[in-house]
Amino acid sequence: MTEKLRVAVIGAGRMGADHVDRIQHRINGAEIAAVVDVDLARAEAAVAGVPGAVALTSAEEALNNGDVNAVLVATPGFLHEDILHAALAKGFPILCEKPLTPDAASSLRIVQAEAALGRKLIQVGFMRRFDSEYMALRNIIEERGLGELLMLHHQHRNPDTLPGFTNEMLINDSVVHEFDAIRYFTGEEISSVQVRMGKRTRTAPEGQNDPQHVLIETESSVLADVEIYVNAKFGYEVATQATFEDGIVNIGNDSGPYIRTQGRWGGQVTPGFIERFGAAYDVEIQAWVDAALRGGIGGPSAWDGYATAACCEAGVKAQKTGAKTAVVLVEKPALYAEAPTAMGELRGAASLP
Amino acid sequence: MTEKLRVAVIGAGRMGADHVDRIQHRINGAEIAAVVDVDLARAEAAVAGVPGAVALTSAEEALNNGDVNAVLVATPGFLHEDILHAALAKGFPILCEKPLTPDAASSLRIVQAEAALGRKLIQVGFMRRFDSEYMALRNIIEERGLGELLMLHHQHRNPDTLPGFTNEMLINDSVVHEFDAIRYFTGEEISSVQVRMGKRTRTAPEGQNDPQHVLIETESSVLADVEIYVNAKFGYEVATQATFEDGIVNIGNDSGPYIRTQGRWGGQVTPGFIERFGAAYDVEIQAWVDAALRGGIGGPSAWDGYATAACCEAGVKAQKTGAKTAVVLVEKPALYAEAPTAMGELRGAASLP
Amino acid sequence: MTEKLRVAVIGAGRMGADHVDRIQHRINGAEIAAVVDVDLARAEAAVAGVPGAVALTSAEEALNNGDVNAVLVATPGFLHEDILHAALAKGFPILCEKPLTPDAASSLRIVQAEAALGRKLIQVGFMRRFDSEYMALRNIIEERGLGELLMLHHQHRNPDTLPGFTNEMLINDSVVHEFDAIRYFTGEEISSVQVRMGKRTRTAPEGQNDPQHVLIETESSVLADVEIYVNAKFGYEVATQATFEDGIVNIGNDSGPYIRTQGRWGGQVTPGFIERFGAAYDVEIQAWVDAALRGGIGGPSAWDGYATAACCEAGVKAQKTGAKTAVVLVEKPALYAEAPTAMGELRGAASLP
Amino acid sequence: MTEKLRVAVIGAGRMGADHVDRIQHRINGAEIAAVVDVDLARAEAAVAGVPGAVALTSAEEALNNGDVNAVLVATPGFLHEDILHAALAKGFPILCEKPLTPDAASSLRIVQAEAALGRKLIQVGFMRRFDSEYMALRNIIEERGLGELLMLHHQHRNPDTLPGFTNEMLINDSVVHEFDAIRYFTGEEISSVQVRMGKRTRTAPEGQNDPQHVLIETESSVLADVEIYVNAKFGYEVATQATFEDGIVNIGNDSGPYIRTQGRWGGQVTPGFIERFGAAYDVEIQAWVDAALRGGIGGPSAWDGYATAACCEAGVKAQKTGAKTAVVLVEKPALYAEAPTAMGELRGAASLP
Repeated sequence: MTEKLRVAVIGAGRMGADHVDRIQHRINGAEIAAVVDVDLARAEAAVAGVPGAVALTSAEEALNNGDVNAVLVATPGFLHEDILHAALAKGFPILCEKPLTPDAASSLRIVQAEAALGRKLIQVGFMRRFDSEYMALRNIIEERGLGELLMLHHQHRNPDTLPGFTNEMLINDSVVHEFDAIRYFTGEEISSVQVRMGKRTRTAPEGQNDPQHVLIETESSVLADVEIYVNAKFGYEVATQATFEDGIVNIGNDSGPYIRTQGRWGGQVTPGFIERFGAAYDVEIQAWVDAALRGGIGGPSAWDGYATAACCEAGVKAQKTGAKTAVVLVEKPALYAEAPTAMGELRGAASLP
Repeated sequence: MTEKLRVAVIGAGRMGADHVDRIQHRINGAEIAAVVDVDLARAEAAVAGVPGAVALTSAEEALNNGDVNAVLVATPGFLHEDILHAALAKGFPILCEKPLTPDAASSLRIVQAEAALGRKLIQVGFMRRFDSEYMALRNIIEERGLGELLMLHHQHRNPDTLPGFTNEMLINDSVVHEFDAIRYFTGEEISSVQVRMGKRTRTAPEGQNDPQHVLIETESSVLADVEIYVNAKFGYEVATQATFEDGIVNIGNDSGPYIRTQGRWGGQVTPGFIERFGAAYDVEIQAWVDAALRGGIGGPSAWDGYATAACCEAGVKAQKTGAKTAVVLVEKPALYAEAPTAMGELRGAASLP
Repeated sequence: MTEKLRVAVIGAGRMGADHVDRIQHRINGAEIAAVVDVDLARAEAAVAGVPGAVALTSAEEALNNGDVNAVLVATPGFLHEDILHAALAKGFPILCEKPLTPDAASSLRIVQAEAALGRKLIQVGFMRRFDSEYMALRNIIEERGLGELLMLHHQHRNPDTLPGFTNEMLINDSVVHEFDAIRYFTGEEISSVQVRMGKRTRTAPEGQNDPQHVLIETESSVLADVEIYVNAKFGYEVATQATFEDGIVNIGNDSGPYIRTQGRWGGQVTPGFIERFGAAYDVEIQAWVDAALRGGIGGPSAWDGYATAACCEAGVKAQKTGAKTAVVLVEKPALYAEAPTAMGELRGAASLP
Repeated sequence: MTEKLRVAVIGAGRMGADHVDRIQHRINGAEIAAVVDVDLARAEAAVAGVPGAVALTSAEEALNNGDVNAVLVATPGFLHEDILHAALAKGFPILCEKPLTPDAASSLRIVQAEAALGRKLIQVGFMRRFDSEYMALRNIIEERGLGELLMLHHQHRNPDTLPGFTNEMLINDSVVHEFDAIRYFTGEEISSVQVRMGKRTRTAPEGQNDPQHVLIETESSVLADVEIYVNAKFGYEVATQATFEDGIVNIGNDSGPYIRTQGRWGGQVTPGFIERFGAAYDVEIQAWVDAALRGGIGGPSAWDGYATAACCEAGVKAQKTGAKTAVVLVEKPALYAEAPTAMGELRGAASLP
């Protein structure tokens, strides 16, 4: 379409500022044209040292600025819907940080607007799909070298949570990644969700039951479960064990130097998601830029955003009832007909050992 | 009580013959006095080369043989109840392979008979309690160095099953070990069981749904779950991951030589339970012999046999209904008042790294 | 100095073409201005799809082309000296793939020419210094949290070698990386080299003794050794174990998915150096570009190129004599006064676990 | 020969007392008949609670006591020669803790005396041969599934040493195990030894250079080396990496629970040789008892004791000269004609993964 993406980053918080730095210093084929934040000082700080970029307080102004031809949405989720509709109207390539929108109904409206356009413009920021281990496991599943996938056991552990992190946020902000990962691994939609709550850790804040055990089924009855534990203190861990007919695969193990000292052996626990998935962000943004320059998307689509929003709604309901809760989706528009995981040539090199 | 146990082994199948060999060649303080099997040839084969031991076809005859002063029960479970009552009547120390009896009602009768005697004579063969890693994890839980235990994730994988292995046997013969392990780790009784069934592996025999996902809760709401998968082809694996307030512990990893060749690195999977837990059997039998010579038991009691029988009944019912099923126990007789895990000085050396 | 590096890549073989692709698609702040190769077709193939870049057959022509302001040297080593002198004369920032030049005498001439200029323009392509595990080990050594470093054990394994790979090339092309790594880890020069040869692998080509065991000492008597094995068949492996007063650190372990199937557990061996160190190349080139835009270098200097050339000469001599062979260096010019490892802010995040 | 070994244990220090306990409580087919120590109180303490055993101060008295028919020698090495000659004269099976005797000349006299008898009565206590990982590696080498063995890299690390532990003891008491292991793995004699000394750890006692790097060659030019480090503080570690034509094998990795907490992952380092090789002692003693009851030996022979004594002498000389030092052996008597590693049916189950 164009020689270079001139990106407007909407939202200059931690994630937005991170993307500004990434695009300006590590990504080829894109430059920052504008940064938007309701707090102008924050937008200005983000563009300091970025020649030719403007700081603005309105997304609309950025979209209509003649210098902008692409959008990266990094605001809180409840602001996404309006920005997405406006950017779709402009025909700009859009990278939207997850969630697409905060609920299934509004996500569906985005899907329908994009389907009406007849072109995929929106890529959703489920960046785990760009991690080499996730791609490798996906490949092993697809190639069926270990037979059919039967079960998935996910562990999602965070050292701690911000004040005010509720049970609902635990589903919407944390388990949402696992919903997408399960959809990515299996190439299937999720059909039901159940939530078990048990003994609480002493550091769980008032009103939050941590950990929780989320039970998930897919269309073909793959049994998945997620141990979600967000006050795990010891560090960050996101791991999956896949059980196949003919073997087992683990991803997400710790790596790095192996040390023996003072009566113990081992290494360092990954402290957070930046350290674990930082490289995946670079790959994700470069994939988006490369695809957008060719007129398409290079990762999860608006449909993936909608389907995970429906999973989250079922998950929050399941937290309250304790019962198995169906996930119901509308019929998939033709625009999204391929498998939710299709990502062109982005494939893990690894298959079977 | 005596200088040496003169043991009658009842049942000369694979496990019984194994115990004859063990007691005769690797255990100190005990000798084989008699081997009983309905198939006399099998009993005779087992005593060949054991000086002073007789082959018999009746347990009663063995118990009344003046040379016998201890009993090891290794017959199929449905034959246990009569033998146990007869051996209790003689006042002999008894090692009973699991299950104590095949159902909770008959197990309870054994518990009541022993409680009436006022002495613990029966030790049940849950040999994992004698494995060094199980003892190490139990110690870490008890010492609370990682805070409270919150969750237990168990994986039980067998390469294959005998013909005729039903869904019920999957609970009664395989998950039963996990029921006991969860009771051992937590020092608590199990309060409920639920079973999820999903995609079947292609090699599961007719009428068996394999794998299954068993959800378990304890009295203090520790959430445990068991992935039971008995046609796993790739080898044997019994592993547990314990989630604490302040950390995670895994046991059951593979060990042995680490090899790099032909594009892959790794080692050998443990082929079966003999290779994994063989040393634990030696420790278990020696612990029983040592305790019996001092007039007590050195491992799991009849109460443990009864409580796991009740878990199995609930598990089989849960398989059929899909619902969470309560495990109901009678009040524990005073004889078994101590924690189900108390095992005297048998402790893992390891605690925190 | 300038807004963007306009790089002439000299040499369009595998490594040169790789750098063209990297600079054009993944590096920020630099573009390809020219590609030079004696084989014009190869140069043309490399610039195809690079707007504004020219294909040339002469390095001199590229240096005098007004559009070029930086040089990346990727020709065979014997061609380096002339190019380096010419590029130094132009005052261009230079990234020179290792070796600086093929022998210590010519490397010293480069060092002296650069020292006479009084500015560091040359960075040498020892890219392992940009690998996160190497940086992490270097940090642990510097911080002395495990006490003094005492020994280094290096393993360098290649699946196979090109035809005509001689004993000398084994030192000059493979062990040279270990010489630099030992200098990087210790911050010291190497004082002696000895080589042991033993049993040959059946696939070693005529005239090559593979594996070899290289014994190395540093100024402060750290004992290092290198197992160099270049027909290792099973895959690529470059690993180091560092022994400290108070502990041990390993780097270079395999990572990626962990698989259990068909009686074995493990994963895939890294197939080659691209897979192992590919990300380090990106980091290296970006570090060079960033430093060059600020008027300096961002990695190993010409002195490092000279010192390792002297180690290689001693190593080849030691292969022939079997004796411990001293490494003799001229006095270090003031320009290179800082430690050979100083790399500005490029530091591994990891220190002790 | 007899129904049960009635063993005289000569030497009631730590190792002797340990063997008394082992034979009395965990070994089948042997009993303690006598314990001998120059310190009668120590001998008496060792036989307390062993019915039918006597405490003595003279080995001769024990050998002539009619109740003794086997000898386990656990005194300091300089006392071994006389006891061994006396026990050989009685025709008793003998288990002799390493070293056979403290020097090659006296070891050779023992070998010649036994060869004159024409029967193997002496088994030497190199217990690593009874460790399952050592057996597994030996099997992999013998079966040649990874091609020919090319190199062996041994690490021997001790947390600390007793006061007065000299450079010579480092060879005679620690590296001696590696000499035997290399002979066991390769089935070859050692042909030369060289020793490198470098930077000393701050906690090495006066007069001891720790660590040292021992370079070893076998008859077929397998290059072996041993990092010996006996003030390693962090714990015990005895590991070997074997390099083959087609792969690599590591043994001696840590096992046990894997823990993640407080920003680190890992487990406990084995604290000492008892924890690492304790089970191997049981297997060793049972193998000796079983073989002795059949009239033979079940492990390393007097020849193995002699050959390792010759290695130690060469090693101590090499420490002083820094030069490669030949190991010269007499011609092997016919009695020891089989390979030094032949151990009947004691084989590791594991071969290739």
